[in-house]
Amino acid sequence: MSVLADLLSTVFERRYRGAAEPDRQNRSIEALCRDLLGSSGEVSGMALSRLILDRYAGMDDAGKLAFFQFLTQDMGVDPEAVRDTLDAFETTPDRNTYRAFMTAAEPPRQELARRLNQVPGATAQLVAMRSDLLRLARDNPGLSIVDLDLKHLFASWFNRGFLVLRPINWTSSADVLEKIIAYEAVHAIDSWDDLRRRLQPTDRRCFGFFHPAMPDEPLIFVEVALSHGVPGAIHDVLSEDREAIAPDAADTAVFYSISNCQSGLAGISFGNSLIKQVVADLSQELPNLKTFVTLSPIPGLTRWLSERDKTMPEDDDARRQITAHYLLNGKRDKGGPYDPVARFHLGNGASVHAIHAGADLSPNGQKQSGGVMVNYLYDLRQISQNHERFAASGEIAASSEVTALASAAAKTTE
Amino acid sequence: MSVLADLLSTVFERRYRGAAEPDRQNRSIEALCRDLLGSSGEVSGMALSRLILDRYAGMDDAGKLAFFQFLTQDMGVDPEAVRDTLDAFETTPDRNTYRAFMTAAEPPRQELARRLNQVPGATAQLVAMRSDLLRLARDNPGLSIVDLDLKHLFASWFNRGFLVLRPINWTSSADVLEKIIAYEAVHAIDSWDDLRRRLQPTDRRCFGFFHPAMPDEPLIFVEVALSHGVPGAIHDVLSEDREAIAPDAADTAVFYSISNCQSGLAGISFGNSLIKQVVADLSQELPNLKTFVTLSPIPGLTRWLSERDKTMPEDDDARRQITAHYLLNGKRDKGGPYDPVARFHLGNGASVHAIHAGADLSPNGQKQSGGVMVNYLYDLRQISQNHERFAASGEIAASSEVTALASAAAKTTE
Amino acid sequence: MSVLADLLSTVFERRYRGAAEPDRQNRSIEALCRDLLGSSGEVSGMALSRLILDRYAGMDDAGKLAFFQFLTQDMGVDPEAVRDTLDAFETTPDRNTYRAFMTAAEPPRQELARRLNQVPGATAQLVAMRSDLLRLARDNPGLSIVDLDLKHLFASWFNRGFLVLRPINWTSSADVLEKIIAYEAVHAIDSWDDLRRRLQPTDRRCFGFFHPAMPDEPLIFVEVALSHGVPGAIHDVLSEDREAIAPDAADTAVFYSISNCQSGLAGISFGNSLIKQVVADLSQELPNLKTFVTLSPIPGLTRWLSERDKTMPEDDDARRQITAHYLLNGKRDKGGPYDPVARFHLGNGASVHAIHAGADLSPNGQKQSGGVMVNYLYDLRQISQNHERFAASGEIAASSEVTALASAAAKTTE
Amino acid sequence: MSVLADLLSTVFERRYRGAAEPDRQNRSIEALCRDLLGSSGEVSGMALSRLILDRYAGMDDAGKLAFFQFLTQDMGVDPEAVRDTLDAFETTPDRNTYRAFMTAAEPPRQELARRLNQVPGATAQLVAMRSDLLRLARDNPGLSIVDLDLKHLFASWFNRGFLVLRPINWTSSADVLEKIIAYEAVHAIDSWDDLRRRLQPTDRRCFGFFHPAMPDEPLIFVEVALSHGVPGAIHDVLSEDREAIAPDAADTAVFYSISNCQSGLAGISFGNSLIKQVVADLSQELPNLKTFVTLSPIPGLTRWLSERDKTMPEDDDARRQITAHYLLNGKRDKGGPYDPVARFHLGNGASVHAIHAGADLSPNGQKQSGGVMVNYLYDLRQISQNHERFAASGEIAASSEVTALASAAAKTTE
Repeated sequence: MSVLADLLSTVFERRYRGAAEPDRQNRSIEALCRDLLGSSGEVSGMALSRLILDRYAGMDDAGKLAFFQFLTQDMGVDPEAVRDTLDAFETTPDRNTYRAFMTAAEPPRQELARRLNQVPGATAQLVAMRSDLLRLARDNPGLSIVDLDLKHLFASWFNRGFLVLRPINWTSSADVLEKIIAYEAVHAIDSWDDLRRRLQPTDRRCFGFFHPAMPDEPLIFVEVALSHGVPGAIHDVLSEDREAIAPDAADTAVFYSISNCQSGLAGISFGNSLIKQVVADLSQELPNLKTFVTLSPIPGLTRWLSERDKTMPEDDDARRQITAHYLLNGKRDKGGPYDPVARFHLGNGASVHAIHAGADLSPNGQKQSGGVMVNYLYDLRQISQNHERFAASGEIAASSEVTALASAAAKTTE
Repeated sequence: MSVLADLLSTVFERRYRGAAEPDRQNRSIEALCRDLLGSSGEVSGMALSRLILDRYAGMDDAGKLAFFQFLTQDMGVDPEAVRDTLDAFETTPDRNTYRAFMTAAEPPRQELARRLNQVPGATAQLVAMRSDLLRLARDNPGLSIVDLDLKHLFASWFNRGFLVLRPINWTSSADVLEKIIAYEAVHAIDSWDDLRRRLQPTDRRCFGFFHPAMPDEPLIFVEVALSHGVPGAIHDVLSEDREAIAPDAADTAVFYSISNCQSGLAGISFGNSLIKQVVADLSQELPNLKTFVTLSPIPGLTRWLSERDKTMPEDDDARRQITAHYLLNGKRDKGGPYDPVARFHLGNGASVHAIHAGADLSPNGQKQSGGVMVNYLYDLRQISQNHERFAASGEIAASSEVTALASAAAKTTE
Repeated sequence: MSVLADLLSTVFERRYRGAAEPDRQNRSIEALCRDLLGSSGEVSGMALSRLILDRYAGMDDAGKLAFFQFLTQDMGVDPEAVRDTLDAFETTPDRNTYRAFMTAAEPPRQELARRLNQVPGATAQLVAMRSDLLRLARDNPGLSIVDLDLKHLFASWFNRGFLVLRPINWTSSADVLEKIIAYEAVHAIDSWDDLRRRLQPTDRRCFGFFHPAMPDEPLIFVEVALSHGVPGAIHDVLSEDREAIAPDAADTAVFYSISNCQSGLAGISFGNSLIKQVVADLSQELPNLKTFVTLSPIPGLTRWLSERDKTMPEDDDARRQITAHYLLNGKRDKGGPYDPVARFHLGNGASVHAIHAGADLSPNGQKQSGGVMVNYLYDLRQISQNHERFAASGEIAASSEVTALASAAAKTTE
Repeated sequence: MSVLADLLSTVFERRYRGAAEPDRQNRSIEALCRDLLGSSGEVSGMALSRLILDRYAGMDDAGKLAFFQFLTQDMGVDPEAVRDTLDAFETTPDRNTYRAFMTAAEPPRQELARRLNQVPGATAQLVAMRSDLLRLARDNPGLSIVDLDLKHLFASWFNRGFLVLRPINWTSSADVLEKIIAYEAVHAIDSWDDLRRRLQPTDRRCFGFFHPAMPDEPLIFVEVALSHGVPGAIHDVLSEDREAIAPDAADTAVFYSISNCQSGLAGISFGNSLIKQVVADLSQELPNLKTFVTLSPIPGLTRWLSERDKTMPEDDDARRQITAHYLLNGKRDKGGPYDPVARFHLGNGASVHAIHAGADLSPNGQKQSGGVMVNYLYDLRQISQNHERFAASGEIAASSEVTALASAAAKTTE
């Protein structure tokens, strides 16, 4: 259907543009944006939106930077208007004064983005625009104001209620699957055959969130292995030689890779919802599953040690102890766990379940954590309580085994 | 799939709620809303959202009114915080000061609505909530401030880029079709057989906009008759005895009924986009179609005459003249055409094409316009220009025939 | 997609027919059939098939009868050819002699039907053709030979492996649902509202078999009520006032109506597969379901009594006894149970579970069985054994309660 | 849905099999086949069919050969029964005698195949079974009798009316696409990237026929290039560097590869229907397409020359002449064009349109035809007439250019 819709849209735009185009082609993108926000935007918006998005897509970084500066400087709020309308609203709080305040308090660039978002494919183009913006803002911090507006808008558009959970498997379309290959951020997929090994065996699952306006673009996906017991090494999970087991013979689901796909949606978190929905989904499909854990990297471990002038011990037990200590006690200056993956899962209400040495033999695994990995446990009966304690007081839930490891490390360290 | 998703969601919520529920059941809806906006909302949001929406759904009007008053009074902006953050932003315009301003300038009830919108079916429930709000605001004008927030949010959620145009026909599902029967606002559909006559013949079409989060709820739909030439009477279009023609024998598409479906989306206009998309769609499917017109009621005519102490003339020609005069020259006090249907189509860039007496023999048609109807013409080559002239100076495009009728009326009137 | 496919096919045929048509329009349907079986059928078969099917569709009964007589007399086997090729095959059994025999032993009308079946919609038209044939064969028994060929072909085409089980519910399309209304053969559905009561409540299910080449035509469907315990009266099941129960609160699924839809598929049995598939389906979806029964009419009871110069007793117990006796002991002259519904379910391996007086208050129910109804039980652990005993020796499985009723009747009768 | 259906089927079978299995596991496949054809097949057929198909799938070639010999010897027609029933039918031609004859004249192995075809996936397994059979029949010609029965059955099951034309593109599922890579028989696809170049550019199309019971198995597919003018070399079509053109800028559609996918469907021709349907489809989608041609290999050319003790000339013109001569005049001993690809397209009603030297630089192209390729033209206005002349008298339609080339060759040869 979407191909047909595109086609129709194109036909329509072509006919329509015929009348409208001559003078438009000579107008600047800034002028076109003002047109779109003006009255004519109501009727000829579709052609205008297409023109602006095409114009943007054809720009080099200098052009994009200029465009974002225009959005920053010319499409922001007018402080005087905010103050005046706010005063009027406080004096006479009614529908008219409130509307005036709302209009003043929201920068026009938000409405501009909404109006651009009316042609097929526009949502993905706007997400890509924010990706450009984040990149350019690194050297142009002033642009980050515009980023806050786009992020705010996207948080509303990509609200959980609009996301669709879809299984990703060997019957998924190639245009989705090639993105799984491209976006896998934890354990790289190096070919279509490798992808097939992640998706096709009976004991593998993959799920992603999609948005209806970007149906072939996963927003985030998680790869799951079904197993007997909790695995302690990623090479066991990904081994080419392993025997697949029957799904109803598994008692454990292992989330061994979670990847965000859209840099243009940075800061809008989907992971918490995704994991919980997948736990619910798998619980229903496979009632024999009793344990839901991750098998997670520990990206900050080596760095944290080195900042403390320590190095990774040689002995496996000692490695596990120091890791337990790090996960339970290593903090950022601004608070919260030092380890970003720990922050994510503990913030979701998971607990630190088990620690494994020799678990990630890849160069990256060796480098970032001396090959140590960790299981975080998602126990639906505990996650709310875990989360609340973590949020309120920073208390970290952990198994007695992990707690004991950390205690041993503390003694050793003293 | 949605049934399965619901089921899974229910399973998940049931398991999850087990832990969370005991103390929640005793909390007020206001307290629950505050919880949802607080930290625990991140993890246990799904259960909380379901609880709040269920609680709301079980309320009588007194309860709903109290809830809306809470939203009005306790979930609005804090003017001092707006002023302070705005000052800080003006002094040091950076990401942190802008974020603080954005947070202060948007009332918490908007974030509340976004957080509620994470369980299956929530979008439709929030739309229904606004429908309640609009009803209760008639006697409680203070609530209309909350309405502006919901309208603003819905305008973003129901942005054109997220709407899906779907044909509605005899292969559509019963749960959609029963809504077409219920929502038809112009020419009532009195049975499934009547509905079938609107949908199944080869020369009939119907299209609606849908939102992916409300897949069985049309937002707006238009009914189309394919014909030879422009019809001048609705009973010819709807006659039970007429012979259907082959679609490729038609040269004209007649939009004879447009109905908005969701009172909770009042004020968010879909009609303009819908008509233009359907024109594009039909142009592609049936290249022989050359003319796209409406056959429209004139709901304000009799009232306008009576406000001027005039009555509808007996003679058909005189009726057509006075109608032409009304459509081209009858204005509201606050500007723009007096007739609401004329305002809509002329605002879209259509022109007044032809006027027919004896065109609507129904009691309502007799009452509101003495049975006179009008065709508005959608000519894609003209609508942009028509619209801009109409928007800029109120100039109304009309055929020479209609202009002549209006001139004759002017002479008669003088 | 099917609309598009139709359209494309039409385009193709129109272009193609342009060249081919002039001389064809003057040819008889018999000549066209011979063309289709000849060499040109390979290339221009689509246009020829459409022409023949259209020609047939336009015929009155006299024309159809003549066409069927042509099929009977001119499109049958040639006995001499069968004998000659059989001799040759026996003498030299190889690929060539066997092919010659196969060709001779199958009448050309079977190949004709296969070649007709290449245009969109042809399968449904051929099924309708057999429906005509069965009707006309009542007065023209010679045609029943052709019927055997069509039945043989359809049994292959409508093989279980090609059927699709689809739930039928309030999200099904109107064109399917109107057929449920039309085809319901046991307890008539008198309106769309009545249909909704059969489909929409949470404790109702309906399933049908469909064939991919006739996607909007159910072949057979079964209506199911979920309940606490086994119901003993159809009016309890269909009552407008009853309260629906939650699906997971039900322990019993009741098959209260099974309807064959296509008279052109008479004699090709789908019911056995349908019931077993639905039992499997519901078992999976609702593990709490423990009992699968029918609530069935007893269409032969009154007739059987009257053939034995008996009448239905007044007393309910006596009615149940005589019914038990009838179901367990009433036989046809050519063997097997007298009652056609009993033959069907017992042949499927069901057992006679319970008998209820006052269970069908409709005029038809009173007339055919004095209002008595019966539950047949589908116990998956027993149906194979039940079936084999029934098939081998006519032994009928029954609950001890029903056996006792029949014994009591036997004593009374003696 | 099919995954769910499989699951349900498995559940059902598992429950059901529980009762049935013990004694079955010890029975031979031959005994199981007899059970399936007997009475118990009606009720327990699904479990039996699964058991037989699983048993077969686990066999080595010796086991399969024995099974096919059983089908040949024990599941064939009984000549005496055929003669007796035929005599009875001739004496008293009625429904009963005809049914007896039909039953006798069809070997039980056909009914066996139909009964096996009731479990999910059975159709594909039966097609694979015939693939085995064809392979084993090379050394065991007696088996080819069974092959005729399967071929006859499959011709009925895979009748044009049951096939679905589906576009194959980069949104198709990986499990279908991997089969395109595997089955491409003309110009090998060596990677997923190569596949993408065949499917994703705007000027590329691919279409396949599918059967609803084997939804992820293409039966045949054709690859199409849209172009300006008729291309004369396959490397131009497949070049990695070429610029894609817009579809509506193309005037020609080139069928440059047609591949049959299922060796188990050998001898059942889909190619003619596929090409004509795709011509119709593309004509509708892209009205600017005026010419539909192939770019075809000439697999018999070198061999034909060598059989005549000739070799390919060096000169391009001479190559084209000798090729034209070969295509128009080279015959098989048993009649018809010597070249198999020519036989296929000319039999479909195409004409020999143009001949190109240096058109296929691959080793295989050099070897089979000295690099020469040919365009066959599909002109819908001519194909019926072309076909009939070809079928009646072997007359080959050709462009004047090709005819002239052949004449020149004739002169040279003389």
